[in-house]
Amino acid sequence: MKLTILGCHSATPRTNTNPTAQVLEIKNHMFLIDCGEGTQVELRRNKVKFSRIKHIFISHLHGDHYFGLVGLVSTFRLLTRETELHIYGPKGLKDVITLQMKLSDSWTNFPLIFHELTSKTSELIFEDDKVEIHTIPLNHRIYTNGFLFKEKENERKIDINAVLNANINVAYYRKLKQGADVKNEEGVLIKNETVTKEPSAPKSYAFCSDTVYDERIIPIIKNTTVLYHESTFLDKNESLCERTKHSTARQAAIIAKKANVETLILGHFSTRYNGHEAFELEAKEEFDNVLLAKDGKLFEF
Amino acid sequence: MKLTILGCHSATPRTNTNPTAQVLEIKNHMFLIDCGEGTQVELRRNKVKFSRIKHIFISHLHGDHYFGLVGLVSTFRLLTRETELHIYGPKGLKDVITLQMKLSDSWTNFPLIFHELTSKTSELIFEDDKVEIHTIPLNHRIYTNGFLFKEKENERKIDINAVLNANINVAYYRKLKQGADVKNEEGVLIKNETVTKEPSAPKSYAFCSDTVYDERIIPIIKNTTVLYHESTFLDKNESLCERTKHSTARQAAIIAKKANVETLILGHFSTRYNGHEAFELEAKEEFDNVLLAKDGKLFEF
Repeated sequence: MKLTILGCHSATPRTNTNPTAQVLEIKNHMFLIDCGEGTQVELRRNKVKFSRIKHIFISHLHGDHYFGLVGLVSTFRLLTRETELHIYGPKGLKDVITLQMKLSDSWTNFPLIFHELTSKTSELIFEDDKVEIHTIPLNHRIYTNGFLFKEKENERKIDINAVLNANINVAYYRKLKQGADVKNEEGVLIKNETVTKEPSAPKSYAFCSDTVYDERIIPIIKNTTVLYHESTFLDKNESLCERTKHSTARQAAIIAKKANVETLILGHFSTRYNGHEAFELEAKEEFDNVLLAKDGKLFEF
Repeated sequence: MKLTILGCHSATPRTNTNPTAQVLEIKNHMFLIDCGEGTQVELRRNKVKFSRIKHIFISHLHGDHYFGLVGLVSTFRLLTRETELHIYGPKGLKDVITLQMKLSDSWTNFPLIFHELTSKTSELIFEDDKVEIHTIPLNHRIYTNGFLFKEKENERKIDINAVLNANINVAYYRKLKQGADVKNEEGVLIKNETVTKEPSAPKSYAFCSDTVYDERIIPIIKNTTVLYHESTFLDKNESLCERTKHSTARQAAIIAKKANVETLILGHFSTRYNGHEAFELEAKEEFDNVLLAKDGKLFEF
């Protein structure tokens, strides 16, 4: 599981800070999460192949989370993309994109499929044989979702020496990976656990931005491998949180602790702060395993 | 008259090339012309004070000319701007901006005034005591205008020694600047041209992007000081012009020659070309005074 931070700053793009956008590579998918202004340039800078992006998730319709989307869709069109593009985001997003397409008298030559979100409870919005994606309803000034990306249980691993010794036909390997006992060439039933190994634990990633401190997300993100939680402010500016519906680094860490996640990544920093060490120090008073997002940074888990 | 090129490339923003945007400083105005994605960052990079921008002109609704507008307007809001902002552009632009404002549940705290353009003939869209601005109907795939910025006749210059010698009361200086003859302290009529000098010639700037070669613009831009004319392609790709409604460098130069402008600036380069010397060489076969636009370049006239 790889996470590339394209932008992790709040409010407005600046010369050296980008608004929210990130790419999650998981089970051969490249999921783009949020798409602030300039995201297409950051994708190029970070050498993400445009054609690998087939699903885009937009948390909410504040500009710093989606103003780069229409440009990215237009660029896909100019690059003569043909593969489907799925966009998940709040109701209204389709109107914004289609209005601008219509005014430019240009439509995409690829299927552009909108999945508009309106539910106020967590829902499954994507599933294939390897991954499922759920919304995480967040508490912000406007309708907002986080997204939980979960690997499904991985298949058991064939112990190739044991399988050869047991004289099992290759046709049964698929069943073995799925955990079944099978008969060998002599018709003897072979116990699965004698010829396979435990699968690696499925990983998960929860993206939670933007949101005020809200413990209602804890059951949804419980035991997640990696939590990205917004930390727009530090303790000293906590008074701004309620009005703006943002969180402090400490609050993000308390959520991480209560949800028993493995790793917390802090991001969505207000541009009022220079440097982010204070965010890490503040969060570590509550929770040990804290990392800082940074534009252009690649995390591997 | 100063022109700062923020972006002069066609189609899509890339790591090292920006889509169309430029700032014209004329008679103490800062006019922003077009606003492709990333323009607000380029304004910062080029140290243009946001508060000095009061008028924005959008040529047409292809994304590379306006996808940065909604972000810039949002940033003005976040910076608690209070002064009026006037936006001139094709019908539909207001819908795009207001829809996105509405969906983000945030309206500007400054007056945002749209001047939607629909005329297919040149019209006067702005005038004060120093400057007037006219549209230049262009021939592109969708409804498009260029813009002609014209200084008004400048006032005559007081020859201070002559005025003192003639013993003219300071109360008459205003009339002298306007060209009138005035009486001196002894009641003698003083001929204006004996105590004033010729004003400097008014300057003008014509922005013409995007457009196919079309001689119908020549009467409008005749004798302009500086013409910015798009040159998306070179001769060798001229066959693309008719379908895409763009021009070559040679065609831009022929327009410049026929319109008798002083200086031609080439821009809106297709990103298929590396380096732009060939554009200059091609144009100079038709017209002598050719300059190349470049992202971040400041021209003074």
